[in-house]
Amino acid sequence: MTDYRRLRVALLGAGAVGSQVADLLRKHADELSDRAGAALELVGIAVRNPDASRDADLPRELFTTDSEQLIVGADIVIELMGGIEPARTDILLALSSGADVVTANKALLATHGPEIFDAADQVGASVYYEAAAAGAIPIIRPLRDSLAGDRVQRIMGIVNGTTNYILDRMDTEGSEFADVLADAQRLGYAEADPTADVEGFDAAQKAAILASLAFHTAVPLEAVHREGITAIDRQTMEAARHAGYVIKLLAVCERITDAEANSPTGEAISVRVYPALIPREHPLASVHGANNAVFVQAEAAGNLMFYGAGAGGVQTASAVLGDVVSAARRHIAGGVGVGESTRANLPVVPIGRVTTRYQITLEVSDEPGVLATVAGILSEGRVSIATIEQTIEPIDPQQNLVPVEQDVAGIARLVIGTHTAREQDLSDTVDRLAASGVVDRVVSVLRVEGN
Amino acid sequence: MTDYRRLRVALLGAGAVGSQVADLLRKHADELSDRAGAALELVGIAVRNPDASRDADLPRELFTTDSEQLIVGADIVIELMGGIEPARTDILLALSSGADVVTANKALLATHGPEIFDAADQVGASVYYEAAAAGAIPIIRPLRDSLAGDRVQRIMGIVNGTTNYILDRMDTEGSEFADVLADAQRLGYAEADPTADVEGFDAAQKAAILASLAFHTAVPLEAVHREGITAIDRQTMEAARHAGYVIKLLAVCERITDAEANSPTGEAISVRVYPALIPREHPLASVHGANNAVFVQAEAAGNLMFYGAGAGGVQTASAVLGDVVSAARRHIAGGVGVGESTRANLPVVPIGRVTTRYQITLEVSDEPGVLATVAGILSEGRVSIATIEQTIEPIDPQQNLVPVEQDVAGIARLVIGTHTAREQDLSDTVDRLAASGVVDRVVSVLRVEGN
Repeated sequence: MTDYRRLRVALLGAGAVGSQVADLLRKHADELSDRAGAALELVGIAVRNPDASRDADLPRELFTTDSEQLIVGADIVIELMGGIEPARTDILLALSSGADVVTANKALLATHGPEIFDAADQVGASVYYEAAAAGAIPIIRPLRDSLAGDRVQRIMGIVNGTTNYILDRMDTEGSEFADVLADAQRLGYAEADPTADVEGFDAAQKAAILASLAFHTAVPLEAVHREGITAIDRQTMEAARHAGYVIKLLAVCERITDAEANSPTGEAISVRVYPALIPREHPLASVHGANNAVFVQAEAAGNLMFYGAGAGGVQTASAVLGDVVSAARRHIAGGVGVGESTRANLPVVPIGRVTTRYQITLEVSDEPGVLATVAGILSEGRVSIATIEQTIEPIDPQQNLVPVEQDVAGIARLVIGTHTAREQDLSDTVDRLAASGVVDRVVSVLRVEGN
Repeated sequence: MTDYRRLRVALLGAGAVGSQVADLLRKHADELSDRAGAALELVGIAVRNPDASRDADLPRELFTTDSEQLIVGADIVIELMGGIEPARTDILLALSSGADVVTANKALLATHGPEIFDAADQVGASVYYEAAAAGAIPIIRPLRDSLAGDRVQRIMGIVNGTTNYILDRMDTEGSEFADVLADAQRLGYAEADPTADVEGFDAAQKAAILASLAFHTAVPLEAVHREGITAIDRQTMEAARHAGYVIKLLAVCERITDAEANSPTGEAISVRVYPALIPREHPLASVHGANNAVFVQAEAAGNLMFYGAGAGGVQTASAVLGDVVSAARRHIAGGVGVGESTRANLPVVPIGRVTTRYQITLEVSDEPGVLATVAGILSEGRVSIATIEQTIEPIDPQQNLVPVEQDVAGIARLVIGTHTAREQDLSDTVDRLAASGVVDRVVSVLRVEGN
């Protein structure tokens, strides 16, 4: 074997991903060293409890509780603990000690990204984080490097595997949210506390990271509008299918023009996470199970899609190890690291100023003049109607919706598809509809994305 | 605007892609400079005829016929002339003058890649070529960097837009190859001389580049087995559809175990381009028109897919400009460039030793015992039958195939699906079938890929 320069690799954390990374680093050491042009030696793994049981069979002597000593002596530090602290402090220590850093920590990057990238810049080191967005799907390098000469217009991503798994099963099986969630928890697709996934927090962190890269702008997590999927019930899902749509939790990052934005060119961005209707024929509609996919529209490149596993220990380990090889190559090659480009510095507009299409479902009184009243309120609210469908739902909930012509006693329901409208106008209009007297209940208001 | 270090960019060639690159470089100069951290100045465009008409409106004074002088004074040289010479000489001159190189020249890289990468290594410069495989789809960086810590098992790519356009129209419209080709030529999807596309030469070059990256092995173009699509007729296409398949021109790059290969571990690779049947439910089956897609299976990452426009001046320009920004960042950062990793040096096995599944279509005599004879020959040839279907085609070619039970006079046809067989065994067996006396005609032999 070639006599390579030796690089000391320190690992922080040995959970599902960390154990796999340590295992693969040891198993494929020769091959990885050939690719990196440096002998990658795992010198230690910092954990809270060295005697805990692990997913992989790793020598006891690698484990330590003294992360500081481990970090200070390393050329490459892999942070896989997650959470803000001590990850943040450890990464800053690694950078100031001259190490390159590999991390999968989306929560940290979405909240303290600028601080960490600045620290790296100051010492000429690099921070690699391919595993922090969309698991094993290579999306960071394409956005940062391959599309660096283009103008990204829009990203629509399915970036959370748990919620896609739940929504996909609700769609294909007609099940209720709570039942599928319980099953997903049993099967290990969802955590015991599913909040981070089902309320969209995880997706919002990834959206902030993707938008920052795509628009060369530091997007703070607080600027990401976030809604989860807990309000999506079986009936909403069924109605979506009936209308030719599927509901997906989307991370949408969009370059827009906004006259009110504090931007010399009027250019701004919107970053939002919410469940949305997408047409069944859209490529994102056929992303099933816990898979992820990121759909990118760029000015010159046109439409691109990146598809793969969104999570999983070994899949995420693939992305981490790719970063380790990159970090090693850079460490050997010398020169300063790849900095983050945030010079575009575009303002992020609040959700109220975003425009998109909507589908509004209302329960209304089954009497003459209701449709006219509703149409009037929409028109006054500057929400233009594209389609409208009226159905009578029979009182017996076992039966399906039937067309109004069949003259069955029941609850009248209006499904209104709008043209592009401004979110604030739409939400004011829905409030007025709710208060109008002719609307018994606002069943759902969903955005329509993807054409 | 920030006072950046100025980098001199030289462009060689001003065809469809070159004109777009020059135009976008000038139009988005400030934005690109912000991202690169350097002022990118297009200092000249070397062409044969400075007065020829171009796709973009570019100042006459940029054009020169003196490529040598232009190259020697540049920090970054973009080669978009195509072909082997003078591209090879110009790129070597650029590297030896200390410039980083960006090229979309797949023919050159597939034939002289090692020479060019060695030259870059010697001076510590980099060669970027995202546009050389699958157009605007970012596939080079994912393979070279993101998956550098993983083991790629298999790549299946639709990497030629022209042939996918032709096959897709044949499939959806039921048209003949020659008619669709003529139409594609009229519409600009195919060249006046379509040989490079329809005979698979272009796809083979891309396959060599992708395999080299994925398997860390210099794969020479001669080692790529290549078949084109000119033998695919309407009837073959129809039969494929009938059997639940679609025919695509695939570039397959596969890690295999081969006892005869000169490899310490028995590990080897196969790189091949041919039209193959893929199941309609496979993600590659829904790649329509002139689009490209690359499906990657890796040990840890699992299945990934990259999708986008395969060609087009502006789409390819996106990939080229991404490379220009990368080259600029590296030029500014210092250090040596990203070398090619070819240390795995795996042997490429000839097509005869590759195993895959097949579908064999035969015209046979409509008499008793034929099926037994055919089955006997296959069994002797170590080709195991998975499915077999016998049909009688009516003499009237206007009608569709009908099942044999309908007792219509006509040509008996056997469609045999095999289990995995070795290509040499298969091809010997087909020869024996052809000479057996019971087979009137071998209609088609197609590989089945993708499950």
